[in-house]
Parts: sequence; C-alpha cells; structure tokens
Amino acid sequence: MEAAKFSTELESSKQQTNYAADISSIQEARDRIGPYIDKTPVLSSSSLNIIAGRTLFFKCEIFQKGGAFKFRGACNAVFSLPVDLADKGVVTHSSGNHAAALALAAKLRGIPAYIVIPKNAPICKVENVKRYGGQVIWCEPTMQERESVSAKVQEETGAVLIHPFNDGRIISGQGTISLELLEQVAQLDAIVVPISGGGLISGVAVAAKALKPNILIFAAEPKGADDAARSKAAGHIVTLTETKTIADGLRAYLGDLTWPIVRDLVDEIIVVEEGEIVEAMKICYEILKLAVEPSGAIGLAAVLSHQFQDNMRWSHCQNIGIVLSGGNVDLSVLWESFQKAH
Amino acid sequence: MEAAKFSTELESSKQQTNYAADISSIQEARDRIGPYIDKTPVLSSSSLNIIAGRTLFFKCEIFQKGGAFKFRGACNAVFSLPVDLADKGVVTHSSGNHAAALALAAKLRGIPAYIVIPKNAPICKVENVKRYGGQVIWCEPTMQERESVSAKVQEETGAVLIHPFNDGRIISGQGTISLELLEQVAQLDAIVVPISGGGLISGVAVAAKALKPNILIFAAEPKGADDAARSKAAGHIVTLTETKTIADGLRAYLGDLTWPIVRDLVDEIIVVEEGEIVEAMKICYEILKLAVEPSGAIGLAAVLSHQFQDNMRWSHCQNIGIVLSGGNVDLSVLWESFQKAH
Repeated sequence: MEAAKFSTELESSKQQTNYAADISSIQEARDRIGPYIDKTPVLSSSSLNIIAGRTLFFKCEIFQKGGAFKFRGACNAVFSLPVDLADKGVVTHSSGNHAAALALAAKLRGIPAYIVIPKNAPICKVENVKRYGGQVIWCEPTMQERESVSAKVQEETGAVLIHPFNDGRIISGQGTISLELLEQVAQLDAIVVPISGGGLISGVAVAAKALKPNILIFAAEPKGADDAARSKAAGHIVTLTETKTIADGLRAYLGDLTWPIVRDLVDEIIVVEEGEIVEAMKICYEILKLAVEPSGAIGLAAVLSHQFQDNMRWSHCQNIGIVLSGGNVDLSVLWESFQKAH
Repeated sequence: MEAAKFSTELESSKQQTNYAADISSIQEARDRIGPYIDKTPVLSSSSLNIIAGRTLFFKCEIFQKGGAFKFRGACNAVFSLPVDLADKGVVTHSSGNHAAALALAAKLRGIPAYIVIPKNAPICKVENVKRYGGQVIWCEPTMQERESVSAKVQEETGAVLIHPFNDGRIISGQGTISLELLEQVAQLDAIVVPISGGGLISGVAVAAKALKPNILIFAAEPKGADDAARSKAAGHIVTLTETKTIADGLRAYLGDLTWPIVRDLVDEIIVVEEGEIVEAMKICYEILKLAVEPSGAIGLAAVLSHQFQDNMRWSHCQNIGIVLSGGNVDLSVLWESFQKAH
C-alpha cells in the first residue's frame, strides 16, 4: 500500500513538472507583462457577503486593458516572440476577448495582428479589435472555417498563430492573476474561475497551488456547454456536438495542454443554469455596480448556486476569490436577458 | 491698494471660518465615520484618458455603502447625535440616495429612520431604503408636501430632521471624500463634482482647498436644472419654477449653508446638456465597466464637454479627479435613455 501510494505521488509530481506552465514561467510572465497590464483591484460588498454567507473577493479583470483577463496571456505571448518572428505579426481566430487582447498587445509591440472572427461575434467585441488596430478577417461561424482561414492567413503573411488558450505562454500570462490576488488577499480558501478552453483556470490553478498548496480551485461552467465537467467525469477530453449558452466566451473545449492541469488541479467543476448566470449579472450590476459579461459573472453564479451553498464539503471555504473575467457586454444583451428572466 | 486687498482677504478669511463646515469638522467626521464607511477606490482608464486628453481619476462613490456618497454625510449626522436625541430616531424627505443612506446609518446605530418619499422616486432607490430597514412614508411629489409630511412625522415621533444637504454635519461627512482622494492622488489639479443642493461640493471644496489651496473645484450641473449656475451669476440663490433632467439626484436648490461655500470656493459651474449626460453614462458602462447613475456621470460629461475642452483657461488642468457620486440606476432607465439618444 505504502509503496503503491509512493509511486502514485512520484507519477503525479512528474506530471506536474510537465505542465505547459509552472510557477517560474508565471513569475517570468509577470515581469514581462508588468509594464503593460493593469494591476486590477479586488472589490467586496458587505450586502453581497450577507447574501452569499461568505466573504467574497472579486478580482476585477473587467478593468484589465481590453476589458478582460485575456490581455495578460496575449501580452505574454506577443512579448515572448523573438524579433524576427514577431516582425511578421500574429494571427488568431477568436470570437471575442482574446482577439481584442492580441490586437492590443501587437499594437504595443508595433507588429501586425490578423484576427479571424466568426460572423456571429458580439458587436462590442469586434469593435474592440478594430479600436486596437487589429485587421479583421471574417469567417463562417464554425471551428473548421476558423481554423482553415487562420491557416491561410499564416501561410500568406508568415504571422505566428497565437492560440487563445492551448499555449504555455497564454496559460502563464493568465496565471499572473493568482500572483496578484494572493498578494491582495492572503487569506483566501478558494478561487472560483470560469472554464472554457481552460487557459485562465490552468494558469490560476498552477500559480495558486504553488503559492498556497491547500487552496481550492473551483471551475464554473454553463450547463449548455459543460464539456469540462464531462471531461473530468470521463477522465479524458470530451467535446460536445453543440453548445447553447448566453456565456459566449465559454463555448470552447479543453486542449491537450490545459486538460492535464484541469484534470489534476481543479478541485470541482460547478455547472450552473442559464438563469443563474443572468441573475449573477444582475447582482453585479445592481449591487456591485459593475458591468460584467455573462462569462465573467458565472463564478458568482456558482458560489450562489444550491449546488455550492448546500454542499457541506465546502462549508469551510469562507474567504472566496472570484475572478470577474470580463466586462465586454453589449447593453442590449444585458437588457434582453434580464427581460427574458423576469 | 495694498490696504484694500488686505481688508478683502480679512473679510474672505472671516467668511471662511463662518462656513457650516471647516477642515477640522471634516477631519472629525472622518474619525467618526471611519469604522462604518468604505474607503472607495480610484479608477483610471488609459483609453478614456486618450479621449479626454487628460488624466482622469474616478473617485468611485458608486461603491460606497448604499451605492452613493450620501452615506458619508448621513453617517456623520446620525453618529453625531447625543444619545437622548438619537433614541427617537431620524426623519428626512428625499427621493433618493440620502434616504437609503440615512436608513442604513440609523440601522447601524440601532435607531428608527422615517423616510418621506415622493411617489415618483426611482424604484431601485426606494428598494434600497426598504432593504436598510427605513420606514417609508409616501407623499405627493412637491417640495411643499415633502416638507409638511416630514414636519408631521417629526411632531408625532420626536425624530430629528436630517436635511439632505443644508446641514453642517452632512457637509462635513461629504468632505471626507477630499481627504481620501488627495491621499490617493496627490497630484490633482482639479476636482469635478455634481452640484444639486450643494452638500457634496461644499464638503469637497472646503477640504480640498484647505489641503491644497491652488486646486480648482468645478461643479457639473444639468442645463434643465441650472439653478446653481444662475445663482453664481446673480450673486444670490436662484430657484427655478421647474426642473427637467434625467439626473434625478440633481433637482434640489442651494441652501443658506451651502450657498456661501459654492459662491466662494467653486471656481466654475459647467452646465451640460441631457445628451452629454447620457453619453457619459454610456462611456462609464462601456469603457469603465461601471454602473453610474445620471447624476453620478455628469462630472465626466462636464470634462468631455466642448465648454471645458475648448476653454484655454483650464488647459493646465491635466490631472482631474471626478467624483462618480452614485450608481443607483434602474437598468430600464439606462437602456431607455441609450435608446432615445441613438
């Protein structure tokens, strides 16, 4: 028994060192992106703490440049590139915040950014890309089309593909959130993070568990795109033939670099209903006074859900960090979703 | 000439000591309310700084308890009361944030709060009063009705009337904003503050000019309720027979305690159009990611106005503090005003 346990630990420790990011790469990312990113504030609300029965600390990545955490990873990727590669520019396919973030990072380095965007992307997110000088290339809204159009751009321009999440530089950049957050609020028992492709939660989990091994990492996922929860249950990456959620930023699947980290370091995936996401956005607006997009509000939805509130296993989690990952929401979307919900 | 100047200075210095608040009363207020209020953060946005051509520092009173700066003054007034007076409770007539703030301050001291509210008050503001345990007494939406109903409540209960702005304790409480703001951003050249009854701007002006005599204080006022601008021009308090503005918090008139401070210490009143207020709310939502009510966003509207931008007298004001005074806005109001504006 002891021997068996020992070998499992060895294996797990070996796995750990093979992740696409580690605490060193995340600390390096912090130094690299420090001059460009904003150190985002942590906000709390005593009214909301009473509702939640916990002390909640909101890490406001909605105030990050570009309106979302994505700028951290994009900035780390762009400023990691050697000069000769960088000069040809960067390319990505993204419906949202990664696109704007990459455009802005490229602008800061003075290199071109080619952004392949599906035709159904939210208007405010496309406007952000244009505002930061990204060159928009439209495509049909399927993953196949996104990938083939990107490949074509790569071929024609020599630009480097920067994947939105399945990239060690991206994961390391997102992980800088934990370095800041644990400096700002040392007493955290847990951090709740939205999950989609897994770039954000992978970085947050690797850094947080390196600094504070007992901290719990919860993922929050919409029921209409619950591939990560299914993947954890199955023990391998599961993809869905279709996703349906208001949380437009959470429709991607885990990648081969994010999956091992999610598998090993994420303690639980909390799956929430659409109505819970809308209610959380409403609370963000009415009580926190913050504009938070559906994907950004899902962490709060998870903490307020019965699933979390009624689970005695988490009753010791009194100080909870929640990453408000992004604030790019068209007011019309906010309004219409509130109307539908009532 | 010298003698004349000297006597003017003497006179002005005599006036100063006769104001309803001074730097000592404001410092005392800070100590008194310190355990109850939130020290609100100051936020900036590099995108918005480019638009404004200045560095703007937003003092986020939208995050204050009750969702507005009013809690500072209410808290100072309630906790200043001697025990025998306090026990009978407090009463006010207010359509908005002062009502909720007074209810909350009274709750914290464990005394009753009677709130006379006109029937046309915004729903979210009435809900705030109820949430904090205030006893709502409805009245017709005229100033006469408000005052006569309050007087009746006072008579019946023995409660102390706490006026929303024309009260030294209220002015001193609001002045604590300047103490915080100048600690947070020492390099400010100017502070822009919404003006209505003048409680907020009086406190801010007295404290800021005591700490930094050269700082400029700008008031922002809606054109449809420009009584303060007219008062400054006339040299005495002017009231209007009717006001018309989306900024529901800015419809009051100066009082005999706020007027002398506004007259002497406010450097300029910037009058803005309704469309400029709506545009400023939109920028708060889309760029700053903040829910700011119309009255709260008017300071930003003033700084972005042609009147301010084109005036060479203010071109040296590069670092500008803007008080985002409150965030209690029904989403329906926000949505409808955006729709109308486009």
